[in-house]
Amino acid sequence: MPKVSEDHLAARRREILAGARRCFAEYGYDGATVRRLEEATELSRGAIFHHFRDKEALFLALAHEDAERMADVAADQGLVQVMRDMLDHPEEFDWLGTRLEIARKLRTDPAFRSEWLERSADLETATLARLERQRSAGRLRDDVPTATIVAYLDLVLDGMITRLASGRDTDDLHAVLDLVEESVRRGTAG
Amino acid sequence: MPKVSEDHLAARRREILAGARRCFAEYGYDGATVRRLEEATELSRGAIFHHFRDKEALFLALAHEDAERMADVAADQGLVQVMRDMLDHPEEFDWLGTRLEIARKLRTDPAFRSEWLERSADLETATLARLERQRSAGRLRDDVPTATIVAYLDLVLDGMITRLASGRDTDDLHAVLDLVEESVRRGTAG
Repeated sequence: MPKVSEDHLAARRREILAGARRCFAEYGYDGATVRRLEEATELSRGAIFHHFRDKEALFLALAHEDAERMADVAADQGLVQVMRDMLDHPEEFDWLGTRLEIARKLRTDPAFRSEWLERSADLETATLARLERQRSAGRLRDDVPTATIVAYLDLVLDGMITRLASGRDTDDLHAVLDLVEESVRRGTAG
Repeated sequence: MPKVSEDHLAARRREILAGARRCFAEYGYDGATVRRLEEATELSRGAIFHHFRDKEALFLALAHEDAERMADVAADQGLVQVMRDMLDHPEEFDWLGTRLEIARKLRTDPAFRSEWLERSADLETATLARLERQRSAGRLRDDVPTATIVAYLDLVLDGMITRLASGRDTDDLHAVLDLVEESVRRGTAG
């Protein structure tokens, strides 16, 4: 396939994802109908579903974009910084509520769950790698397995997504993240 | 109103709530149609909505039942114990996923949000009261305001609900809760 055409396809794919993200943010998973996806992307359903098998595939692609973006920050600055960014720019995370709406689908559809976990693996890998570096540098507490710390930070991230998605006040969460950060650091004294 | 009739009304109300809880757990908030609520409660829509104004009122009453039940445990044994109970008996918390499905409604409907927060206030009050007792007894860390610790535990609880509702593996969460518990205790050394 000639280069120009590949670039064009990649650009079209990005356009579709950007429109779909806005559409999910505004209407939710179930509310993001084919008609609304057409309006949001300014493309026909034929064009959209040429690139993505179905709405589920679109959704998983967006989850993957998120995981990649968060993984970049997590690799350099840690998962707590990912959460601080969410607090500072909640408008960029408008669509996260959609992730909650699909909890039932995750619970009841094992194929979807395994695809979702696969798409989210980048973030976990990046977080784990950074924590291992922190541990080597003596900055991470060493009385708890790294896997437990990853699971802990992941749980807090899920809580953060829920708080943001439900529009509750998040002013108190900066201090909470300080506590979280300190609780995984070496030499913490309460 | 004679006593018998009051008892009858209270029993009927409990029946409706138990049926509605099963119905929300199985079909989700939007999927819990009037017809399905009738089937689950074995009562007519007339009977159901004699006791509860609408589906939203039913939902808020269930949230209130939860908050009261959790508040009893939180008052005696703390919010971390509430979370341990959730891990040990996930089947009793089947309906919690419904709480995620209403995140959009919480975000976009201020009246609903304020009613929801009011219904959940018992749990926060109980948690705060226990933490204050722990602090007086010298068992709570004293370098962080109690309000921050409440917000922290609340965030972890939201994460826990999300994990359970999405059917993801929770085996690693017992160790995570140990870490959470320890991170609010006085004299923690990492």
